[in-house]
Amino acid sequence: MKPQLNIWKIGGQVIANSEILDQVLDAFSSLSDSKLLVHGGGPQASDLCHKLDIPIKKIGGRRLTDTATLEVVVMVYAGLINKSLVAALQSKNVNALGLSGADANIIQAQKRAVLDIDYGFAGDIIPSKQSAINLQGLLSLGLSPVLCPLTHDGQGQLLNTNADTIAAYVARELCSRYVVNLIYCFDRPGVLLDTQDPESVISMLTHDKYLQLKKENRIVDGMIPKLDNAFTALQQGVDRIQLCDWKGILNNNQGGTTLCTN
Amino acid sequence: MKPQLNIWKIGGQVIANSEILDQVLDAFSSLSDSKLLVHGGGPQASDLCHKLDIPIKKIGGRRLTDTATLEVVVMVYAGLINKSLVAALQSKNVNALGLSGADANIIQAQKRAVLDIDYGFAGDIIPSKQSAINLQGLLSLGLSPVLCPLTHDGQGQLLNTNADTIAAYVARELCSRYVVNLIYCFDRPGVLLDTQDPESVISMLTHDKYLQLKKENRIVDGMIPKLDNAFTALQQGVDRIQLCDWKGILNNNQGGTTLCTN
Repeated sequence: MKPQLNIWKIGGQVIANSEILDQVLDAFSSLSDSKLLVHGGGPQASDLCHKLDIPIKKIGGRRLTDTATLEVVVMVYAGLINKSLVAALQSKNVNALGLSGADANIIQAQKRAVLDIDYGFAGDIIPSKQSAINLQGLLSLGLSPVLCPLTHDGQGQLLNTNADTIAAYVARELCSRYVVNLIYCFDRPGVLLDTQDPESVISMLTHDKYLQLKKENRIVDGMIPKLDNAFTALQQGVDRIQLCDWKGILNNNQGGTTLCTN
Repeated sequence: MKPQLNIWKIGGQVIANSEILDQVLDAFSSLSDSKLLVHGGGPQASDLCHKLDIPIKKIGGRRLTDTATLEVVVMVYAGLINKSLVAALQSKNVNALGLSGADANIIQAQKRAVLDIDYGFAGDIIPSKQSAINLQGLLSLGLSPVLCPLTHDGQGQLLNTNADTIAAYVARELCSRYVVNLIYCFDRPGVLLDTQDPESVISMLTHDKYLQLKKENRIVDGMIPKLDNAFTALQQGVDRIQLCDWKGILNNNQGGTTLCTN
């Protein structure tokens, strides 16, 4: 029987608010099975860009990562946020281990090809069986990996990769070895039928229903890549995928939106 | 028979000069035995402090780490420098894994007590058998740890700890399990009899000779804590300790100063 693995992705206000973060990390620490945390940190990276007078360039919500911005995201994601999370988890008796994709060669990527837009040092993941082998090695030591949204190209170049994508990728790669529960903890109580009404959480979302809502423009913007990624992960064998806010996390993962195949 | 373990500590111009760094990392990569890298990054942290208008305060060469400075050193040591080294080593077929002392609970420390000087978030290592157990676990997976000069207090607080001290500490803790070769790669060709004369390298330095030279004020400043640490490590069983510059490293570790017990 495969062992259980909990993968939580946190970002947004969970990282920005130290009191909420502390409660979410308490909940994460209380999980008895193997666990892995993936974090973002975009707003914190933008803060440092402002302080260093580095212009923030985004297209369609995606950051253009030039050389100066890459240095900032490496410092903020792999340094400030990752190590703060690791130290906090250690204080809660979780033997956390911070990782970028370069560490233990967990995630390789290729620099996104320049078509009409040059995203700079943005990395698109190159799937590899090595990811699961190396992560399983670390998990088998009783460690809880804490992944920041950076990858590398195997030629010495660090790359900026979306944290949602990383969470879906590791969930997919690990699901042949573990029963994987993936939770996206974000700033909404779940996927909403009406984005203006936080009460309109869709508790079970099938892929067909998702396609229909997308067609009707009722699911838009950042939710689309998040859900595209998540449904792909579900179709590839991830056992359970849930989207909720921090209150959902503290409420024993009740509520929020659970994705299901048709 | 105990396996070999090479521990190299790099800092100064080796980190600052990308061409020298590349050659040193090539030499490190070519080591066939287990290997572990410890790095500093003080000048790079000072650069970021300047850019962020954070005053740099030092007493006796030691940085006073206030809250703003701690954020900087975490970003620079664990982020920028550590991940650049890890990605570079991965490109040279070394399965590198970047670590702060908080990661995998490698090194705990206590905030330095305030006597006459408040060093802020400076950490004095609390020796623990767990360091060797956890590092050996990672080495046994074929990983090469890359340690930055940060520790944690087990209560969620990251602390700034001298990289030389970290190198000596991990060498000491691991020497019951490995034949440990520790090399300090610094900006001088070795310990000099005359600090003004780079030709005056002492090739073999005994502890008695060291004490004599220290008494005669011929070994001064930053060399004193470096050598105090190193001799303690030698007396506690580290098999070989050498100090040299990057040219010594590229010259198959010939030259430089080798420490010996009396």
